Amino acid sequence: MRLLLLSTICFLMTFTVFSQQQPYLSLAEAKRIADAAEKKAVENEWTVVIAILDAGGHLILLRKIDGTQIGSVEVAQAKAKSAVYFKRSTKVFEDGIADGNNRLITLPNAVALEGGLPIFRDGHCIGAIGVSGVRSDQDGIIAEAGLSVLESN
Amino acid sequence: MRLLLLSTICFLMTFTVFSQQQPYLSLAEAKRIADAAEKKAVENEWTVVIAILDAGGHLILLRKIDGTQIGSVEVAQAKAKSAVYFKRSTKVFEDGIADGNNRLITLPNAVALEGGLPIFRDGHCIGAIGVSGVRSDQDGIIAEAGLSVLESN
Amino acid sequence: MRLLLLSTICFLMTFTVFSQQQPYLSLAEAKRIADAAEKKAVENEWTVVIAILDAGGHLILLRKIDGTQIGSVEVAQAKAKSAVYFKRSTKVFEDGIADGNNRLITLPNAVALEGGLPIFRDGHCIGAIGVSGVRSDQDGIIAEAGLSVLESN
Amino acid sequence: MRLLLLSTICFLMTFTVFSQQQPYLSLAEAKRIADAAEKKAVENEWTVVIAILDAGGHLILLRKIDGTQIGSVEVAQAKAKSAVYFKRSTKVFEDGIADGNNRLITLPNAVALEGGLPIFRDGHCIGAIGVSGVRSDQDGIIAEAGLSVLESN
Repeated sequence: MRLLLLSTICFLMTFTVFSQQQPYLSLAEAKRIADAAEKKAVENEWTVVIAILDAGGHLILLRKIDGTQIGSVEVAQAKAKSAVYFKRSTKVFEDGIADGNNRLITLPNAVALEGGLPIFRDGHCIGAIGVSGVRSDQDGIIAEAGLSVLESN
Repeated sequence: MRLLLLSTICFLMTFTVFSQQQPYLSLAEAKRIADAAEKKAVENEWTVVIAILDAGGHLILLRKIDGTQIGSVEVAQAKAKSAVYFKRSTKVFEDGIADGNNRLITLPNAVALEGGLPIFRDGHCIGAIGVSGVRSDQDGIIAEAGLSVLESN
Repeated sequence: MRLLLLSTICFLMTFTVFSQQQPYLSLAEAKRIADAAEKKAVENEWTVVIAILDAGGHLILLRKIDGTQIGSVEVAQAKAKSAVYFKRSTKVFEDGIADGNNRLITLPNAVALEGGLPIFRDGHCIGAIGVSGVRSDQDGIIAEAGLSVLESN
Repeated sequence: MRLLLLSTICFLMTFTVFSQQQPYLSLAEAKRIADAAEKKAVENEWTVVIAILDAGGHLILLRKIDGTQIGSVEVAQAKAKSAVYFKRSTKVFEDGIADGNNRLITLPNAVALEGGLPIFRDGHCIGAIGVSGVRSDQDGIIAEAGLSVLESN
């Protein structure tokens, strides 16, 4: 009986310890996201850079399709950073400025171009994807194609 | 006949070996571009900095005409970087913002002032020229004068 | 005979046109390099970041194995940058400082830690790999495992 | 008589005004320096970047010989900056560290590698040359070849 009690306490302690946790994005998932995004880009003959960041805004994965303008290496990362730093699509900033909210231009780390999407799991922002290389709405299509892999699970 | 076959094989091998290659901009060409740009500037008594970058955005050549504002040393390089990073004239960004696309202000490494032009060869962006010192439309005239040397070839 | 002449001329024209060209590293190759490097890392249960840059020092591919210290994201890129900027292994700088050449510490963009290797083809430096996460000699083993894929071709 | 006095005063004022002046390095001189440095490099088949800065540490001229490692673009500028910022040859820092003065490593903007030389005129430091690409003593030979043009005047 004492052993049962001890065991139960142990279990509850374990539960408590683990309850203060956050899900995270693995390299395996990042690869699946990038595969889907790259597939969509290749299908459309769009040359882009695909960047995937973790919850801290650090790179997990980056791929640059041959022939993509080199400026997109930094832009794709900046879009993803913007998405994870503010937990929202970069299109929100693009739309805001289109609506006349030019003050958003002064917001540090905000890139107001579609193509950056945050990645959520269990209510946590666990990372982001950023795509750059073609028109920003096309970049956005590729980014969404990437995340569709996660949504289908 | 055997010689013909050999010759054809050589041709195909050359083609195969060289197929994953990119053309590049030489210092000799950069000097000719800069000479033409500098000539145009001096004719108009315009004081400018002329910067020429390679395909990776690294300086091949820079000249600062006596008396040019020192801020132009960095601006000329930034315009050229913008042109080679995004494979387009910096005037595209200038016009975009003039048309109300203020989101472009948040695009990393994009300088929205005329005077930066990409240099293409065989469909590849092999570098860029950036000019700064006078009015941006005048900077643009000098940049174009520089590249006219290549176009005439 | 006329055909032979034509064929020879074609060969010479091809040679001339392509003579001012440089080979480049493709994303497909970068993936094969990264696969080999990642395999070696996983086999040893080493957590690392693998970064592959082009000839201009721009990212083509990056992968961060789960659990790798976030500092390695930048270090891997810095090692690769050092290797492509100076066309040599970062171990050369590490050895140099070990031999007492402390002046190398002041060399801009030189990272004196093993794990950065340049990638050559036809005498041109077409990019570099940088690995960071474990001991620098272990990082070096992973980088070499990556490039072994190219050397076997 | 009054006119003579006025004229004399004017002359003295002019002299006073002009006495607080500094000589400067012109683009024409920078080109002559670079021509001599480039000639010496080409003679030895050394690939280098040659950078010439003004008294404020700003670029007047830069040339990158084809095939030079891209890291040298920044290193050549850093050597020249070091030379003009401290009005001495970068070899002084190299020798200092070789003599065990490792504290020099912490000196902001000091590059401890031969190849950076200040340019003096009438006791003023009017700029500097920086050379990078080969061994630092070879870089130094090229830098000296450049400045020899001025010394012969």
